[in-house]
Amino acid sequence: MSKTKGNLTLPSESGFLDETVEMMERWGADALRDSDGTKLPDEIKNLDAKIYTTYFVSRGHNDFSREHMDETQSIYLMTRHNVATEEELTISIMDGYYREQVQPNYSYDPKIFWEVMDRTLDQVVDSSLWTVDEEKNTVTLNHTEPFHEYTVSFLVKAIWDPTQMYNHITNNWGEKEHDIPFDVRKKYSNEYIHSYMEKWLEENPRTDVVRFTTFFYHFTLVFNEKGKEKFVDWFGYSASVSIEALEAFEKEKGYRLRPEHIVDKGYYNTAFRVPTKEYLDFIDFQSRFVADEAKKLVDRVHAHGKEAMMFLGDNWIGTEPYGKYFKEIGLDAVVGSVGGGATLRMISGIPGVKYTEGRFLPYFFPDTFREGNDPTIEAKENWLSARRAILRKPVDRIGYGGYLSLAYQFPKFVDYIESVADEFRDIHGKIAGVKPYTGIKVAVLNSWGELRSWQTHMVAHALWYKQIYSYLGVLEALSGSSADVSFISFDDVRKNGVPEDVDVIINAGDAMTAFSGGEEWLDPKLVATIRRWIHEGGGFIGIGEPSAVHHGGRFFQLADALGIDKELGFSLSTDKYFRTPVEDHFITENTRTDIDFGEGMKNIYALYEDTEILSYHDGQVELSAHDYGRGRAVYIAGLPFNMENSRLLHRAMFYSAHKEKDMSVLYADNIEVEVHGYPSIEKYAVVNNSDRPQETTVWDHEGKETSLALHPSEIRWISYGEKA
Amino acid sequence: MSKTKGNLTLPSESGFLDETVEMMERWGADALRDSDGTKLPDEIKNLDAKIYTTYFVSRGHNDFSREHMDETQSIYLMTRHNVATEEELTISIMDGYYREQVQPNYSYDPKIFWEVMDRTLDQVVDSSLWTVDEEKNTVTLNHTEPFHEYTVSFLVKAIWDPTQMYNHITNNWGEKEHDIPFDVRKKYSNEYIHSYMEKWLEENPRTDVVRFTTFFYHFTLVFNEKGKEKFVDWFGYSASVSIEALEAFEKEKGYRLRPEHIVDKGYYNTAFRVPTKEYLDFIDFQSRFVADEAKKLVDRVHAHGKEAMMFLGDNWIGTEPYGKYFKEIGLDAVVGSVGGGATLRMISGIPGVKYTEGRFLPYFFPDTFREGNDPTIEAKENWLSARRAILRKPVDRIGYGGYLSLAYQFPKFVDYIESVADEFRDIHGKIAGVKPYTGIKVAVLNSWGELRSWQTHMVAHALWYKQIYSYLGVLEALSGSSADVSFISFDDVRKNGVPEDVDVIINAGDAMTAFSGGEEWLDPKLVATIRRWIHEGGGFIGIGEPSAVHHGGRFFQLADALGIDKELGFSLSTDKYFRTPVEDHFITENTRTDIDFGEGMKNIYALYEDTEILSYHDGQVELSAHDYGRGRAVYIAGLPFNMENSRLLHRAMFYSAHKEKDMSVLYADNIEVEVHGYPSIEKYAVVNNSDRPQETTVWDHEGKETSLALHPSEIRWISYGEKA
Repeated sequence: MSKTKGNLTLPSESGFLDETVEMMERWGADALRDSDGTKLPDEIKNLDAKIYTTYFVSRGHNDFSREHMDETQSIYLMTRHNVATEEELTISIMDGYYREQVQPNYSYDPKIFWEVMDRTLDQVVDSSLWTVDEEKNTVTLNHTEPFHEYTVSFLVKAIWDPTQMYNHITNNWGEKEHDIPFDVRKKYSNEYIHSYMEKWLEENPRTDVVRFTTFFYHFTLVFNEKGKEKFVDWFGYSASVSIEALEAFEKEKGYRLRPEHIVDKGYYNTAFRVPTKEYLDFIDFQSRFVADEAKKLVDRVHAHGKEAMMFLGDNWIGTEPYGKYFKEIGLDAVVGSVGGGATLRMISGIPGVKYTEGRFLPYFFPDTFREGNDPTIEAKENWLSARRAILRKPVDRIGYGGYLSLAYQFPKFVDYIESVADEFRDIHGKIAGVKPYTGIKVAVLNSWGELRSWQTHMVAHALWYKQIYSYLGVLEALSGSSADVSFISFDDVRKNGVPEDVDVIINAGDAMTAFSGGEEWLDPKLVATIRRWIHEGGGFIGIGEPSAVHHGGRFFQLADALGIDKELGFSLSTDKYFRTPVEDHFITENTRTDIDFGEGMKNIYALYEDTEILSYHDGQVELSAHDYGRGRAVYIAGLPFNMENSRLLHRAMFYSAHKEKDMSVLYADNIEVEVHGYPSIEKYAVVNNSDRPQETTVWDHEGKETSLALHPSEIRWISYGEKA
Repeated sequence: MSKTKGNLTLPSESGFLDETVEMMERWGADALRDSDGTKLPDEIKNLDAKIYTTYFVSRGHNDFSREHMDETQSIYLMTRHNVATEEELTISIMDGYYREQVQPNYSYDPKIFWEVMDRTLDQVVDSSLWTVDEEKNTVTLNHTEPFHEYTVSFLVKAIWDPTQMYNHITNNWGEKEHDIPFDVRKKYSNEYIHSYMEKWLEENPRTDVVRFTTFFYHFTLVFNEKGKEKFVDWFGYSASVSIEALEAFEKEKGYRLRPEHIVDKGYYNTAFRVPTKEYLDFIDFQSRFVADEAKKLVDRVHAHGKEAMMFLGDNWIGTEPYGKYFKEIGLDAVVGSVGGGATLRMISGIPGVKYTEGRFLPYFFPDTFREGNDPTIEAKENWLSARRAILRKPVDRIGYGGYLSLAYQFPKFVDYIESVADEFRDIHGKIAGVKPYTGIKVAVLNSWGELRSWQTHMVAHALWYKQIYSYLGVLEALSGSSADVSFISFDDVRKNGVPEDVDVIINAGDAMTAFSGGEEWLDPKLVATIRRWIHEGGGFIGIGEPSAVHHGGRFFQLADALGIDKELGFSLSTDKYFRTPVEDHFITENTRTDIDFGEGMKNIYALYEDTEILSYHDGQVELSAHDYGRGRAVYIAGLPFNMENSRLLHRAMFYSAHKEKDMSVLYADNIEVEVHGYPSIEKYAVVNNSDRPQETTVWDHEGKETSLALHPSEIRWISYGEKA
C-alpha cells in the first residue's frame, strides 16, 4: 500500500517536537491533540496540522465554582433499603456515599423535594411522619410499620466532577484541586459558560477544533464511602436534575416529576429498565435543553472560524446523538472511543455531523505501554474488529490518545499503526459516502429504538459484564455484517407497524428488560402486529428471552411463532417430546461442533413437532427455527461474539426471511472471511478478519463462484467483472 | 440378627403354593396380596396369613358402565393455543387428545359449561361469538381479533381409566376391554358403588384387608393423539369435575366455578402454581365429599370384620391424607410406593390410620428381574435411602409387589430381602411409637403447608425432572435428618405467625412457584412477620429463589435478611464488590471441595460486606450466610440429594438457629454416618448409610465423644451409657 496522509489525529506533548514531526510523517497525521494530562506547547501548535484542544464546559473553573456553590450540579440519590426494627427508624442518608463527591442539599425544602418510600408497600410515606437532621445527615421516621423497608430519595450537590475524581483517585493526584461541576441551568453558571467560551476562543487562536469534553451533564457515576465506584450508568440522567429543571419540566410537560421518577427504586432508570413515560419525557425535556444550550456554544466556535467536535462520553448526557434535537446543535464532528465494531458503528452512524472520528485502542498509557508487554496485540484486535464495521460505514478519521512519548518507545507498535493508518485511508478513500451492498435489512426491536442505535445492552462504555456479553455479540456481529441494520422501538411498531423494507426483526435480551421488552408484550396490538408481520412472510430472530412476560399460559408471547417457550415450572406436567435435533440445516451449515451460546438460557423447550431443533443440550433447546405462516422465527439461546456466531446470525437472518438463495452474492463460505460490495463503484472487498492465512470460496456480485487465498488480515479489492 | 416374623406383605400368584410357603418362611411374611395381573387362588388364601385383596371402586365394572355412559367421569380440558390468522377461526378441540380416552361431552350446553378464551387479552369470548359443530368436534369463532390466540376449555367424558389405559398400552393387552370410569357423584353410580361393595364383601370372606385402589377420582393423566402421555399431575383435580360437582360447589361455596378455574391457562393448577382461592376451595369441597363417600365404603368393610387399606396413588384425588377430612374416612391403613426417604415419610407420617405400609422397590416385573441384571442393586439403594427415614418415623409394614415367581429366580435378591426384612422388624420393634431425639425443629414454608407434607416439588410420583431435583434433595435430606420437620403455609404464617417452637424456616423453590411463593411475598404482613421472626433469633434457609417476586427494588423480598439478591439486569450499574468467600465456616466444615448445587442459580450476588460467602463460582454466590438481628439467614443455590448436601443442610440448620453447640449431641462427623437417638428407651443407633465400611467420631446423648468403625450399611445400636 502506498504512503498516504490525512484522516489521523495524533496526541502530542511538551518537549517532543522532533519525534512528533517524525511520527506525523510516519502515520500520516494531519491533526494534533492534547490529552488528559498533556498540553500542546506553541512549538507543536505551529506544526502543519489541525490543532484540537480539549474544552471543559462545566468543570475546571473552580474560581467561578467556589463563588457559586449554590450552583453546583445536583443528583437525586436513594439511600440503602433500611428495615425498621422498631417504631422509630433513623436513616443515615449518606451511608455508602462518598462525602468528597456529594453532599446533601438542604437549600430546598426536603419536605417538598425529597421522598421517603415504604418499599415494602411501594408507597410514599407522608412527609409529616419524618424529620430531617441536617447536622447528622439523617432522616427519622417516627411511626414506621415495623419490619417494612424504607428508603429516602434525596437531593445532593455534586462537588466533584466524576471523571476528574476517577483520574484523581486512580493516579493519586493528591492535593490537586477537585473540579466542582456547575449547572448551566443556573443563572450565573449559564452566563459564565457562555462568556468564558467567548474569552477562551479569543485566547486560543491557534486551536482549529474545539473538542468539547463534553457539555453539561455527566453520566451517572457515583462513588462509595471508600472512594470507589458505587454506581455507573453511561446513559444515566440522574446527575442532570435540579430544582430549576424540575420546575421547567413541570411547566413544559404539564406535570411534576417525583424523586421516584428519577431514582426508580434504586435502579435510576438504567437502559435495562423498560422506560417509563415520565423518564422518556425527562430525556426529551433535557435533550431539548442541552441542544439549545450547546448550540449557543457551537455558534460561538463557528463565529471564530473554528470547528466544534463533541467527545462521545463524560458530560454527554442530554446530547442523544441519535435523538431528534442533536442535529440542531450544529456540531462539525463527533469523536468517540472505539472498543470494537459496535462502538465504531455507534460513532460512524451519528447523523447530522460533517465527520466522525474514532479514538482507537490502546490508549498510550503506562498500563499497556510497559516493558515486556506488546501493545501491538491489543491494537491488532481493536483494528480487526473495528475494520469490519468501517467497511460497512466508516468513521472519517482515526486517532489515538495519551502520551505519544510512550508509544514512541515501541517500534513494532509504531510500525503496525503505520500500516493501519495507510489501510484506513485506503478504505476510506474508496468507500466513504458509498452505500455498501446489503442482501438483507434487519431491525433490532427494543424499548429504545433509534434513539439508542448501537447502544443496547451497555452498562458502562464497552465494559464486559457476565449478563450482557451474550447479547452484545449480536450487535458486534451486525456491525460488520452485510445487513442493513436499523433500530426500532415497540412504540414505532405500535404507531407505524413494521417498516415495509425490513426483512428480519431481532429481539434480544433478558426477560423484563427494555431490550427484550417485558411488559410491552402485554400490549395485544404489539403482539398481534408482530405475529401478523411474521405470518405474512417476515423473519423473526429471538435471542435469550425474546418477548418474555408471563401471560396467557405463555412466557414468550411469541412462543407460537418461535415454536419454543421457557419452562417456568408451571407446565412440568406437560410432556416435552420434541428433543431431537435435525441433522442438517441451512443455519448451521458453516458451524463447527459446539456452538458457544455464552450464558445460554435454561429450560427452553420445543412446543411443536415442526419446530426445527438445531441444538439441544442438557435437556434444553439452544437453537431452533420454526415456520409460521409464510414467515419464520429463529431462536438462539445467546450469541457472544466470535466469527462463527457472526456467521450463524448471518445465515439465520437469510433463513428467517426465506432469502437463502440471495445469500450467495458477495459472500464467502469461510467464516473468517467476509465480502463487502460497493455497487456504485463496482468493487468488492474480500476481507480476512483473522490473523491467519485463509482459503475460501467467494461469490461475486452476480453469484459467480471462485476460490481465493488470503494473507493474514488481508483485504483483497476486486472490481466487478475482474477475476478474483 | 435373629430370625423374626411379621410386618411384611408378599405378593403371590396361582400355581406357586410351595414356593410361597418357603418365601413366607424366609422373609417372615404375615400377609399375602394380589397384584396388577395376579389373583390369589384359594389354596394360597388358606395359608396362615392375612389376605389383602385389591379393590377398584370406580372402574372395572363395565357391565354397569356401559349401561350408564352418561355417568362416566368428566375432565375439563383446554385446547392448544390457536392463533387467528383471519376473522374466522375454527378450533379442532380434540387435536392432541386421545379419542380412546376422552370424548367431548355435548350433553350439557357448551354455551354454559365451556369457555372460549382470548389468551392474548386474557378475556372470555362472549358465547354469542362462537358455535360448536358436534359432528366435527370443532368450535368456530366468527369475529376474532386477528392474531390473537384462542383456546377452548371444554368438558369431556373419560371413557378409559388412565391406569388401566397405561398398563393396557404398555403391555399390549390388545382386545382386552377398556375400563370405563364412573362417577360417584352420579345417581346410579353412587348406588352401584355402595351396593356392589356390599355384595363383594359377602362374596370374599377370606379377604382380611380390602386394599382400595383407590376411591373415586384419578389424578390427572391425559394421553395424546398417539396414545402417549400428554399431561401428568399426581395431584391434579381436573378429572374430578362434573356438572353435579360444579352445581354442588356453587351451593356450598356460594359462587360458581368457571372452566378457567380448572384449566388454569393450560397449567391445570399443578402444585407448582400458587393456588388460587377458587382452587383451594375446590380441593376443600372435593375432599369433604370424597371423605364422606369413602367413609361409607370403609364402614361397610368394617361391618364385615375386615380392614380397609388405601393405596396412595391412582384414584386417590380428594383423599388428601394430610387434609382435615382424611381422618373421618376411618381407614385402618395406607399403603404407598417408597421411592426413597421423602416418599417414605409421606406415607409413614399420615395421621389418623392404625398402620402404614411401604411398598418397596424393585417391583417384581420382568424389566428388572431379567437375566443378566442384579435386582439387589436397586433394592439396596431403595432400602438404604428409605431406612434413614424409617429410623425417624417408621412405616409399620413393608411389602413388595408383582410376580413372586420372578423374584424367586434370583437367590441373591431373596437373601438380601431376607436380611432387609429382619432388619426392618428389628428397627420397628425397637422404635415404633418412640419419639426420636431431635436437636432442631424446622418448618418448610410454601403455599401448601401441612396439606402437602412431604409432597413438595413433585410432578409425578417420585419421577426425576431437571427442574425439581435440586429442591427434592432438601426433602430427601430432611427425611432422615434428626430434625423435627413440619410444613407450614403462608396462610398459616399470616394467620398465626411462625409456630413458637420452630427454630428454622426453609423456603425452597423456583421464582413464582407455590414452593417459593411468588406473589404471596407481596403481602407486607407476611414479609414483615418473617423478617421480624428472623430478626428476633429465627433461622431462615432460602434455596433457589426464596421469597422471589420483583418488587420495591428487590427480587428476593427477604434479600435484606439473606444478604444476597438476584441480578435481573436492572442493577448491573451497581458495583458488586463482595465476592470473596470466607476461608472456614461452620456450615461447610464437613464439606469436600466442589459442592453439587444441582441446577444452581444464576446471577446471585452479595448485598452486604457482612454477607458470609461460602461458595462463589463463575461470578455468582452459591452458598452464603448472613446475620440479621439476633437471627441468621442462609442461602443455597440448589441442593440435590447426596449425603454431603444432607450434612450441609443439617449444619446450615444448626448455624442459622444459632444452635451450633447443640449439634454435637447424637451426631457423627463422618457424613456417611448418622445417629438417631431414642431418649425414652435410652438407646441410639449409629447408622452407616453407605455400602462401604466407615470410621467416625460419635457424640452420645451427653455429647461425649468416641470413635467407631462400622461395617457396610451397618446399624449399631448402643444403650445410653454403654461404651460404643
